[in-house]
Amino acid sequence: MQRGRFVTFEGVDGTGKTTQSRLLGQNLEAEGIKVLILREPGGTAISEKIRDILLDASQNNMTAETEVLLFEAARAQIVREVIRPALDRGTWVICDRFMDSTVAYQGYGRGLGLELIDQLNDFAVGGTKPDLTVLLQLPPESRAERLERRHELEAADRLDGESEDFRSEVDRGFRALAAREPERFSCIETQGTKEETAGLVLELVRRVLL
Amino acid sequence: MQRGRFVTFEGVDGTGKTTQSRLLGQNLEAEGIKVLILREPGGTAISEKIRDILLDASQNNMTAETEVLLFEAARAQIVREVIRPALDRGTWVICDRFMDSTVAYQGYGRGLGLELIDQLNDFAVGGTKPDLTVLLQLPPESRAERLERRHELEAADRLDGESEDFRSEVDRGFRALAAREPERFSCIETQGTKEETAGLVLELVRRVLL
Repeated sequence: MQRGRFVTFEGVDGTGKTTQSRLLGQNLEAEGIKVLILREPGGTAISEKIRDILLDASQNNMTAETEVLLFEAARAQIVREVIRPALDRGTWVICDRFMDSTVAYQGYGRGLGLELIDQLNDFAVGGTKPDLTVLLQLPPESRAERLERRHELEAADRLDGESEDFRSEVDRGFRALAAREPERFSCIETQGTKEETAGLVLELVRRVLL
Repeated sequence: MQRGRFVTFEGVDGTGKTTQSRLLGQNLEAEGIKVLILREPGGTAISEKIRDILLDASQNNMTAETEVLLFEAARAQIVREVIRPALDRGTWVICDRFMDSTVAYQGYGRGLGLELIDQLNDFAVGGTKPDLTVLLQLPPESRAERLERRHELEAADRLDGESEDFRSEVDRGFRALAAREPERFSCIETQGTKEETAGLVLELVRRVLL
């Protein structure tokens, strides 16, 4: 039996990762491929409990170090309990966020050491890296629009604890990752409808993995 | 104001760490020193939630990688939220288990890489290392007795998921740590009453820290 393939979606909030994960799953299933769609953090009993602590973070004063270690703990569990067994039985795994989000958010966004985060990621995934990572990016006009609406956005962002500077750093982090591993990353701009983007994603997956 | 001193108790289960933490705290308070007694994992709202997940581990299939990352996450939080502020305001901190337990249990006991655990510990404590670590050790006759009762003990230990081999490895880990950092570690054998052991600990603390 052929090992399943492992596809992850990455990108800043609002790029449609969850929708595109679902649509790629449907498109692959239509071709007779068994697919498991996951999101991070979560996906196991233990990882969901860790997710609860992370989502509760705003009410506490969680340190950046604690946060990254919790993300990696949830990851170590879902990799060994769910992702590896699925790939081994030939099921494809699509994951909405994975190891690259930790580099972008905790490394670039929160300024933790990138080398250490690479080591944490290696430890947590233990060799189970994605075969393909689709980096969804807002088209340039949306980015320009965001910049124009900057003050307004910052007011809204404070509520979920993320400033526009933080978001820019995260975006920069994703671009740096894509440049570092061009064989694994593919960037897709989310212009057009979600179905059009899904078409681009499926075309990419066909070309790279099928 | 003088910075508080940071004392940790380490050792395998049943060596009296909790009792000795409490007795040292009482003895220091009797000398007019402000003392905070903590246990790991725990000690903050976030760390206690992490502790709950760890204690619940037997009902799940928590991986060794997840386990060590959760211990380090709880540690990163208690260091920054509780231990550092206490030391800064001149309070002494006594902690029942700390970073060395992770090396002994997860490194030696579960066989995770020692180098990585050192890195995780360094990341979690961020320079806040104990000034003195008291390694409580069973006297040789108790160890001999344990070995004689080995099969009986193994039957009991299975209930809490630890074999005698695991316990031996943990003990070996603690000894290796004490040999690696003799300036920080002091070994005390728990022969005699708990008050006698507490007397030895206080004498040690007086000599090293006061």
